Amino acid sequence: MRIGFIPAAEPVTRLIEELGKLPGIGPKSAARLAYYLLRVPEAEARALAEAITAVKDETVLCSHCQNITDSDPCAVCTSEERHHNIICVVKEPLDILALERTGRYNGLYHVLHGVLSPMDGIGPEDLKIRELMKRLETGLVEEVILATNPNLEGEATSMYIQRLISPLDIRVTRLARGLPVGGDLEYADEVTLTHALESRQAM
Amino acid sequence: MRIGFIPAAEPVTRLIEELGKLPGIGPKSAARLAYYLLRVPEAEARALAEAITAVKDETVLCSHCQNITDSDPCAVCTSEERHHNIICVVKEPLDILALERTGRYNGLYHVLHGVLSPMDGIGPEDLKIRELMKRLETGLVEEVILATNPNLEGEATSMYIQRLISPLDIRVTRLARGLPVGGDLEYADEVTLTHALESRQAM
Repeated sequence: MRIGFIPAAEPVTRLIEELGKLPGIGPKSAARLAYYLLRVPEAEARALAEAITAVKDETVLCSHCQNITDSDPCAVCTSEERHHNIICVVKEPLDILALERTGRYNGLYHVLHGVLSPMDGIGPEDLKIRELMKRLETGLVEEVILATNPNLEGEATSMYIQRLISPLDIRVTRLARGLPVGGDLEYADEVTLTHALESRQAM
Repeated sequence: MRIGFIPAAEPVTRLIEELGKLPGIGPKSAARLAYYLLRVPEAEARALAEAITAVKDETVLCSHCQNITDSDPCAVCTSEERHHNIICVVKEPLDILALERTGRYNGLYHVLHGVLSPMDGIGPEDLKIRELMKRLETGLVEEVILATNPNLEGEATSMYIQRLISPLDIRVTRLARGLPVGGDLEYADEVTLTHALESRQAM
């Protein structure tokens, strides 16, 4: 006999549902997170709820680089210690965090907020490409690094932008392809290995 | 030259930090979730924030079974369709969801909210054991199923409770141990396999 299933309390069910909408959080993880939040001190749960609200209320896109910022223009675009003649173009704000972590890039950024993807109906007008071209009009920029992801859509987006920039007197570069440090030659795919071979360097 | 690292905007950093406190969410997942929340429509982010707050504001522990509920006593404890002479003792509310999903248990529950763990300083007085014993005093309960996890701490907790109940005229049972359905004999550990052998059943 299959008997009536009694679900969790409504607020718990609702929280599980909302958490389950997050990327990479399945129904089981959502339930585990919900019950974790039920257990933690009220202040901690409230801090999370407030951080979520604040991130919406207190941030805007930087009118220069389109990165997420709490002051427009953002800290990078207004920094006098950074080179304003070089712009690194990335897909999303997360990529900026990754590049900043290297501590080796000292120029500006431009966030596209996506890549070209005809399958998903995402064309050039859906990305911040017009805003990029406008920044280049000033004539102050000497190099644009196209740092989209090394996959089909990333490459297509870079190619598209490269063609737009080519009439201008601006150097266009892209990040090097090759073996990831700590990686294993045996597990490298053919395309990466081909890139690594072709761009081999003198020791 | 290592240059100055420019972090994400303060509200973003704060959200990444708060998300990173959740169990199973590392710094990279936290960043990914934060930027996901930045992208989604404001209503969706707000729904999550409100669900987190509501789960704290609108739930209490059921004064009978100690499960999380939005009405005390909870829906299970007040159900007239369930057998009130059998109580299934579990470690946490999530375990009730799992048991309810089977659709095969028609009794009441009791949530311990933890297991005995001397290493972590968790003794009997930290669990809802006193509340359980009080429920048994009525003399209406005929069976207690000890459904703690089949590990060292779960077993120790069950043993402890079993000894408390033994003077009373109440049947004490525990969930069967054996091979998980869909599992592979080859990968079963010795203890599970021993249990499966010793509890083998006629076909």
